[in-house]
Formats: sequence, structure tokens, C-alpha cells
Amino acid sequence: MKFHLITLFREACDAYLSASIIGRARKEKKISVSYQSPRDFVENKWGKVDERPYGGGPGMVMTALPVVKAVEKALKIRSGAERRCVIIWFSPSGKQFTNKDADTLMKYDDVVLVCGRYEGIDERAKKMLKTLATVKEFAVGEAVYTGGEVPALAVVDAVTRRIPGVLGKDTSVEERRIASRAVYTRPETISYKKKNYRVPKVLQTGHHANIDAWRKKQ
Amino acid sequence: MKFHLITLFREACDAYLSASIIGRARKEKKISVSYQSPRDFVENKWGKVDERPYGGGPGMVMTALPVVKAVEKALKIRSGAERRCVIIWFSPSGKQFTNKDADTLMKYDDVVLVCGRYEGIDERAKKMLKTLATVKEFAVGEAVYTGGEVPALAVVDAVTRRIPGVLGKDTSVEERRIASRAVYTRPETISYKKKNYRVPKVLQTGHHANIDAWRKKQ
Repeated sequence: MKFHLITLFREACDAYLSASIIGRARKEKKISVSYQSPRDFVENKWGKVDERPYGGGPGMVMTALPVVKAVEKALKIRSGAERRCVIIWFSPSGKQFTNKDADTLMKYDDVVLVCGRYEGIDERAKKMLKTLATVKEFAVGEAVYTGGEVPALAVVDAVTRRIPGVLGKDTSVEERRIASRAVYTRPETISYKKKNYRVPKVLQTGHHANIDAWRKKQ
Repeated sequence: MKFHLITLFREACDAYLSASIIGRARKEKKISVSYQSPRDFVENKWGKVDERPYGGGPGMVMTALPVVKAVEKALKIRSGAERRCVIIWFSPSGKQFTNKDADTLMKYDDVVLVCGRYEGIDERAKKMLKTLATVKEFAVGEAVYTGGEVPALAVVDAVTRRIPGVLGKDTSVEERRIASRAVYTRPETISYKKKNYRVPKVLQTGHHANIDAWRKKQ
């Protein structure tokens, strides 16, 4: 499974995607991550990727063609014509990205994540991208961010951890259990500021039916 | 405004928080970011931060005290006793973090973001943290991630961009406008794969009432 990030801020993304569980999944070739910068596809000599918006308004808008060409380049790198490809476009008005969407993305060989900056990307880029592959529009959370990079990291992370073998045990994909579950570990009693904090007794019984019932209540 | 990240993966976070708009806000002292690792507060010589969960189940759980001590250390670094402090605890069952929550966080001087890893943090840590400061429990998006780092980056990003002067113009905080707005920039016509893509005519009229009406429809 290959992730292609279309971003002006490769280093900002790659540090996260090189660490911990995701970094290990890359080393073990369970996923790969590549980057394309729209700046490499501008046709002006200043490397300018943005312009003022039509119709007025604050800030700058990323121009369409450099983004589209960066996606084209990412798709060309694909080995083999039979690969299934999807392009992710982030927008605060997109569908909220869920674990179910993460499962759906696992069916693709190439996932291209388009990270806009500034006030967004010229809307026509989305139309042009639809001539290249399926485009899915997602939001990650309900706040607005400075760019699509945090949502892209969230998607790569959420998908990768669901790939069999990436977490220590397949059952560690904890949303297959009870989501609101509170977890406890050693020691059994913790003294803090003259107060004792204990592990709930039921968890120490080894009585699985009772433990499950307790966890459902959390 | 100071953000304190409690994380085992400082480098993974700092690259993102050093780039672009957030990096500039740090350089201009509009925000500061510090890190504490629970690993620096363990009492075993192997630097082990996790243990098996009580009651069974997959994976490992972060032990409570190293997390609490890392937060204590972050709070000690505060200059001045009058600073308002809040601790953020991430959980898939927490309240969805919104722009309104970002505005609320701006009222605090210190925002401590606790990033769990593995199967989560011993639930007692949350109780102990409540003896130190207000604890707010948030989720960012609806998928499950490998840790709290992506949600923490999302919160720092969403809050920072709302601080006056961080974006070029205050009005660039685009959720104060119409959220679903499609943006367009130059050139007026783009030819791509033998098709012409044009900027909607209304945006070129300069007729602000019509433009606003059109944007509301998007």
C-alpha cells in the first residue's frame, strides 16, 4: 500500500511518519510513503504557488495546475497499470473520516492525499483530479487547521494501524472492542498526594463475563 | 500562550510545529512549545513506560505516574503563579474538538496536551491530573490513531491560527466566513486534457451582494 502526500511541507510530515508504529510499518515495507510538492510544478520562476482569490476575500489561494501535476507525477510512479488508486481531498465540509473509511481505503493500492495550504486550493483542481481517479472528500475533526497536513497524517496513521501485522496483535485494533473502555495497569495501588488510587476490583478477579460487563458500562 | 506536549515522540511532533505558520508563530513568540517525555520519569532502570492491562486484553498500557510527573514538570516550568492552566486528555469517547473549543483554549496561559500511546494510559492518571488543573477530554475526528500526537498537533494548529496576527489578516480565520466556500484564483481559464475550466462568472463581476449570495449557495 502506497501513500502519496501532495504537500509543500514534506519534512513536517515525514518526521511523524518515520516514528514509532508508522515508521516501523514503513521499514517492514507494509506501507510506503512518497511526497510531491506543487512547488516543483509551477511555471513561474519564483516558485510561487498561490494567487489572490477571485471575487475578493482574505489571503491567498493555491493555483490548480501545480497541484494537479503533482498528483499526476505521484500516479506515474505507480508500478503496474492494474493498481487501484484513490485521491483524498480535504475540506471542512467533507464527510467525517471514520474507522470504516479507513477500512475502505485499505482496498486501494495507492492513496494520494492532497494537502492544501493558505485559504485552500482553486476548486477547479478537484474537477481535474476526477479525470485521473476517484476523488473522496474528507474532514478530520470539526476544527479548521492551517493546512491539510494534519488530516493527512491522521488518515495515514488510522489506515496503517489497521493493516494486519502492524500492531503487535490484530486484536489491538481497539475499536473492535468497547470504545470507551478505561484501561488500568500496574501497580495495583498508587499513592499520590496522600490518596490511594486502586485498580477496580473486578479487573483483578479473572472472571471474564464480569469484566466484559464492567467494561461495557464504562 | 504556552503549549506543553507530554509525549514519547518529541521529534515526530516538533517537525510539524516548526514549519510554516506555526513555526513562524513560535519564532515571533506568539506561542511557545515545550515537551516532556514520561520516559524521563519512570523509576525502573530500563525506561519502561508500559505494562500489561489488568483484566486482560491485547497490547500494553502506559503507567500512570510517569505521565502525571511529566505533567507536573511541565506545570513547574510556568513562570508566575497566576497563570491559567488546562490539561487536555485525548480519548475517542471525548467531546469532538471544534473551533469554539479552540477559542475557549485561548483563554488559558498554559495548555498541557497528554499524548497516550499503545492501548492508552492507566485511567487513574486522569484522576490524579484533576488534582493539578482542569482536565478537558477531547477527540479529534472519529477514527482511532496510534497515539495522541496527531490530535495534539491538530489542537495546537487550530488554536494558534486563531491568535490575532498569526494569519496574515485576522479575517483569514475562514470559519468566520461560509465554511463550504469554493475558492478560485488565476488564471481565469485553465485548459486541461482538451477541456476548459473557467472561474464562475459571478466572481469576476465585482458585485459583492451577488458574490455573497453565490458563495452562500456553495
